[in-house]
Amino acid sequence: MTTSLPLLTTDAARCCAPVAAGVMKADDAKRLARMFKALGDPTRVRLLSMIAAQSGAEACVCDLTEPVGLSQPTVSHHMKQLVGAGLVTREQRGKWAYYAIVPETLATLSNVLDPQSLRTGVGSSR
Amino acid sequence: MTTSLPLLTTDAARCCAPVAAGVMKADDAKRLARMFKALGDPTRVRLLSMIAAQSGAEACVCDLTEPVGLSQPTVSHHMKQLVGAGLVTREQRGKWAYYAIVPETLATLSNVLDPQSLRTGVGSSR
Repeated sequence: MTTSLPLLTTDAARCCAPVAAGVMKADDAKRLARMFKALGDPTRVRLLSMIAAQSGAEACVCDLTEPVGLSQPTVSHHMKQLVGAGLVTREQRGKWAYYAIVPETLATLSNVLDPQSLRTGVGSSR
Repeated sequence: MTTSLPLLTTDAARCCAPVAAGVMKADDAKRLARMFKALGDPTRVRLLSMIAAQSGAEACVCDLTEPVGLSQPTVSHHMKQLVGAGLVTREQRGKWAYYAIVPETLATLSNVLDPQSLRTGVGSSR
């Protein structure tokens, strides 16, 4: 049911201006919404935090199932959505899949939501 | 250094440590996921950017319908979700509803996604 279009991480790097920088372009809004949607689930937020907290910001799927108390297929399903949104990468090494954080995507989202630009906007309005 | 804006959404202000700071608590993950879910739609991302770009980071619903090309009930439905997630506040003034950005919520999300803490995590792992 879920269509997961491949999203290159360079897409995330190219996108997007802070929310307060002006009315967002439709394409940028679509791209961002996809990333936010992937984070719109408590299990996926926890999975992301687990990977991010690991040394090298990378984790084996075998280490993710127990902490969230879900089966491996369910965890893999969630991870597929994080991969599709460009938030993590997936690498198969023998039996296990390893997931690594894409810092550029986190930086993009963090920057987009940064309220600093709001003050500038407010201050420069008079 | 800090803003003197009133803390309207104490929930958002209380929540949450950066994703790389350790495995996120279930409650925090739930709270964050709700905010991200509200942003998981291109129209809502655009609406947020339109309000954020206004002077005072505030906008009348009457100015939001045309740019997104949607009816007022549809825009109001989207806005309700942004309000529910603590991303904007709503104030009725006579005939119109006015929406204002909650900078604290944006700051919370921006901080949670900040990949700076990743580097610390990676660096301090040896």
